[in-house]
Amino acid sequence: MKNTEQLTPKEIRVLTRKGKWDKPTAGLAMGYAQANLVILPQKYAFDFLLFCQRNPKPCPLLEVLEPGEFRTEYLASDADIRTDIPLYNIYRKGKKEATVKEIRALWKEDFVTFLLGCSFSFEEALLRANVPVRHIEENKNVPMFITNIPCKPAGSFHGPLVVTMRPLPADKVVRAVQITSRYALVHGAPVHIGDASRIGIRNLKKPSFGDPVTIKKGEIPVFWACGVTPQAVVMRVKPDLCITHAPGHMFISDVLNEELATH
Amino acid sequence: MKNTEQLTPKEIRVLTRKGKWDKPTAGLAMGYAQANLVILPQKYAFDFLLFCQRNPKPCPLLEVLEPGEFRTEYLASDADIRTDIPLYNIYRKGKKEATVKEIRALWKEDFVTFLLGCSFSFEEALLRANVPVRHIEENKNVPMFITNIPCKPAGSFHGPLVVTMRPLPADKVVRAVQITSRYALVHGAPVHIGDASRIGIRNLKKPSFGDPVTIKKGEIPVFWACGVTPQAVVMRVKPDLCITHAPGHMFISDVLNEELATH
Repeated sequence: MKNTEQLTPKEIRVLTRKGKWDKPTAGLAMGYAQANLVILPQKYAFDFLLFCQRNPKPCPLLEVLEPGEFRTEYLASDADIRTDIPLYNIYRKGKKEATVKEIRALWKEDFVTFLLGCSFSFEEALLRANVPVRHIEENKNVPMFITNIPCKPAGSFHGPLVVTMRPLPADKVVRAVQITSRYALVHGAPVHIGDASRIGIRNLKKPSFGDPVTIKKGEIPVFWACGVTPQAVVMRVKPDLCITHAPGHMFISDVLNEELATH
Repeated sequence: MKNTEQLTPKEIRVLTRKGKWDKPTAGLAMGYAQANLVILPQKYAFDFLLFCQRNPKPCPLLEVLEPGEFRTEYLASDADIRTDIPLYNIYRKGKKEATVKEIRALWKEDFVTFLLGCSFSFEEALLRANVPVRHIEENKNVPMFITNIPCKPAGSFHGPLVVTMRPLPADKVVRAVQITSRYALVHGAPVHIGDASRIGIRNLKKPSFGDPVTIKKGEIPVFWACGVTPQAVVMRVKPDLCITHAPGHMFISDVLNEELATH
């Protein structure tokens, strides 16, 4: 058998479908875009789609499926969204009910599937340009912070922007802006550079989610919109049902990160 | 009174609201983005929003309003979408019923307003860089062609991509790609360069809409996605009611074209 790092996106999806892969997907199928998952009943779909349209930095839509459709078309031609994600979280009325390996029995004809871009894509591009990514160096989860920046509301969906933070040497900040600007479909350019208090963050050592990372002397914290934002916003609305990927357990697509770059 | 070229977007909107401006908006409020209008009853709104998400080049969403809302928030803070467009076309079941100067009496609580980017924005940028825009030189309407490229369907919305054509000297083609790539929210980079037959266009002298323009010896036809696409697609569905701007009679926003540029 191949090393897991050598598996193609399709091979990983097939393993996952057979229940043989339920671990995080970071580091798998390098070069290929991974996606966040949100599934909602149709009655919430227009408002959520509008929320994503109004907040493209935290909610960069890669693909939205027709009501009831569980096969992707753009991100992969042979995927089944009910089985091809390593772990799913099931939420009812905003409360996590279960974490499961497939959702075939739960599937309903009015489910609308949203697949959103993930910062794994631009982190790969940063590393290729010798821009350090601290949480990868330290083998941690990226630190995430709830800010005082409100998202633009849509229907009943509203809430604050959640950001990730990556500390950078001062002479890498401009390059990091340039590189991530190319990836508008995976959160794109930073939302803030420097003083964390300006966006409502009190203590960089105490992230709202994820792990704290080392900030070396002279390094500047740089903040990007985070895919946790739409999940947090959905949970506030307490929908009858919402299904997401479990954190870090993403959908692996056949689309290369470079195909998503805007220029 | 000021020359019309000197009027601000707000001044033009106020004149329009009072019924004192019902002419085309090309050349007005230079530097500011103008927008295409599509208003649909809510039952069509999810599918149309999804169609725009899947086809961002022909359907670049600048702003979508909540059901029933007629005031813009992002594009202007004091606009009324029922009165601030010089001329509206009213379609019932896909057939044009009337062209009117305001739609207050028609307004319903379930109307959803879509405002889409317009190529006026990138034409200004081309001219600033000495890239010629032939239909402006010849004081004509831009030539538009129905292609054999299908849009990605969404719900009941489907149809071919409509493109605009601008002939360019060979040594300006690369620069035109670079410039328009910056304006993803106003149709962005070209969809095709050169041989028109490759995208199903038989005769560049006979556009599907608009006027033919001179193609000088050695010039290369360059094709961009066109905002007529979503209107053509909507008409195929024959919705009970659809309201659009009359061609060339756009919504003038307070957002600068440069604010819409991606980098």
